[in-house]
Amino acid sequence: MSLAEQVLEGNIRAAARLMRDIDDGRPQAIDELKALYPRTGNAFIIGITGPPGAGKSTLVDQLTASFRGRGKKVGVVAIDPTSPFTGGAILGDRIRMNRHSCDEGVFIRSLATRGALGGLSRSTSDVALVMDALGMDIVIIETVGVGQDEVDIVKEAHTTCVVMVPGLGDDIQAIKAGILEIGDIFVVNKADREGADRTARELNTMLEMRHAVEGSWSPQVMKTEAQRGTGIAELTDEILAHRDYFLSSGTINKFLRERNQRHFMGILRDTLLKKALSFMAKSDSLDRVVTGMTDRNIDPYSAVDEIVLKMMSDSDD
Amino acid sequence: MSLAEQVLEGNIRAAARLMRDIDDGRPQAIDELKALYPRTGNAFIIGITGPPGAGKSTLVDQLTASFRGRGKKVGVVAIDPTSPFTGGAILGDRIRMNRHSCDEGVFIRSLATRGALGGLSRSTSDVALVMDALGMDIVIIETVGVGQDEVDIVKEAHTTCVVMVPGLGDDIQAIKAGILEIGDIFVVNKADREGADRTARELNTMLEMRHAVEGSWSPQVMKTEAQRGTGIAELTDEILAHRDYFLSSGTINKFLRERNQRHFMGILRDTLLKKALSFMAKSDSLDRVVTGMTDRNIDPYSAVDEIVLKMMSDSDD
Repeated sequence: MSLAEQVLEGNIRAAARLMRDIDDGRPQAIDELKALYPRTGNAFIIGITGPPGAGKSTLVDQLTASFRGRGKKVGVVAIDPTSPFTGGAILGDRIRMNRHSCDEGVFIRSLATRGALGGLSRSTSDVALVMDALGMDIVIIETVGVGQDEVDIVKEAHTTCVVMVPGLGDDIQAIKAGILEIGDIFVVNKADREGADRTARELNTMLEMRHAVEGSWSPQVMKTEAQRGTGIAELTDEILAHRDYFLSSGTINKFLRERNQRHFMGILRDTLLKKALSFMAKSDSLDRVVTGMTDRNIDPYSAVDEIVLKMMSDSDD
Repeated sequence: MSLAEQVLEGNIRAAARLMRDIDDGRPQAIDELKALYPRTGNAFIIGITGPPGAGKSTLVDQLTASFRGRGKKVGVVAIDPTSPFTGGAILGDRIRMNRHSCDEGVFIRSLATRGALGGLSRSTSDVALVMDALGMDIVIIETVGVGQDEVDIVKEAHTTCVVMVPGLGDDIQAIKAGILEIGDIFVVNKADREGADRTARELNTMLEMRHAVEGSWSPQVMKTEAQRGTGIAELTDEILAHRDYFLSSGTINKFLRERNQRHFMGILRDTLLKKALSFMAKSDSLDRVVTGMTDRNIDPYSAVDEIVLKMMSDSDD
């Protein structure tokens, strides 16, 4: 039985194996993904993002328990930041998730693919696809919302929760207009801390000032204390309410078109680059170009033109 | 006279125009870059990175003044973070730089190319190349060190200064092993603040614990108060000391090979994708693929295989 067939039967070890093959860039992993694809598209994807220190991991842990309590299988893709500035803290938090480690209905996978071909968002969508095929009803993608890469990852989610925390200081948190665009739900976590009400109020004020389109979704500001589980049931309800809106309003159609086009273009870009590099490997031309650039005899733009032309005319071999 | 020729004569308006053409993705911009390339490679590139709120913009402003005082022309590429979490604050700081606005020896350019083809690091290197061609002796690239994109940008620099600040709290700053790898010089800015000595000491301890290779560069921890200009002359000296090491030790050779290969591959990837998309546009096949993916009749991996094959065999037309 192929890996894909095993994954579709709910075999967790096969899923882990396939994800490893994807990570390692093994060509047969693509064949498995091809086989899985028609049977996917069923999982509901939730994005959790926010600045470092907002307690996202604990919140994801609690949401996982909450959805499990409602009979849902839950996959978690945790993006461990590749940045030196947010380094190890998040990896440490991951340990807490171990309470689900004996639960077959929970599948947790950390990604820290610094410099991976196609980038983090490509890896994330492939891993989410495998979790979807494995029969996970909910896939939670957790990421530190700081870079463009991370913002791209959030685009994978049907529902995005932006997690804020009181007292991080405006200087760092910098709640600006942009943040309002990406959140479907806003969460003020660590709500027992001083300033929680003020942060929630400010968020609400900013949300109200937005020009809401008639009949469109209005994001709520929820308060949680993930550490104690306070507010988690309400947050779960709100996520499901957004899901209903997403499906019934037709928002999903535009979302799927954009996401599928992005996926396709990402795969196209990676495939073409890989083809070009293996074409160049045959004649050691990469080395020649790089040396020429260093000596400033060759400019990279002309070198690319030349390689692309050769590659195209050579394709009948 | 072509734009490239004007840039090479030091025409600032021509440089600004070319950068705009690059931003807009005009094909003729590539021809200008081809013409510039052989005449570049002279500028010394300094990367300034660190968490939001560390006072990087003020520091860059002071370094600019300091290098001007030593008779150097200075270009500044300021990467305005595209993340909603670090949004507007940095843009505001930019205003301070206006004190150089009447100085022909200073050229400042902000980049905020969210979602640009090829990403931020590609745009940064193109802009740095134009500044180099324009005759800038020093090009300072300032970025908020938070995402992978930003870390990639730092790789463009010959000398990287990591700017820290006392009192941001370990929770957020998370000074971990990774940060030590990217810095050639560490700066504790806002050194008048409480805890500055402790932050500097901790950094020094961590740097000492590293397994230093005999004869390799040992990064120093400098203290500055950019706001008052304190420590700027010393930092400038240290940057120049690293530059001397970089050139005399041969480190530059490995650096250039890696950077040139990265540039070439980035341009190759973008060019191939653009070619594929214009090929697909002829037959509206992008739309067909995306619709097929949404209906789960087509998987993106097989669709890419098919397009690439067609594109190759069609190349004789």
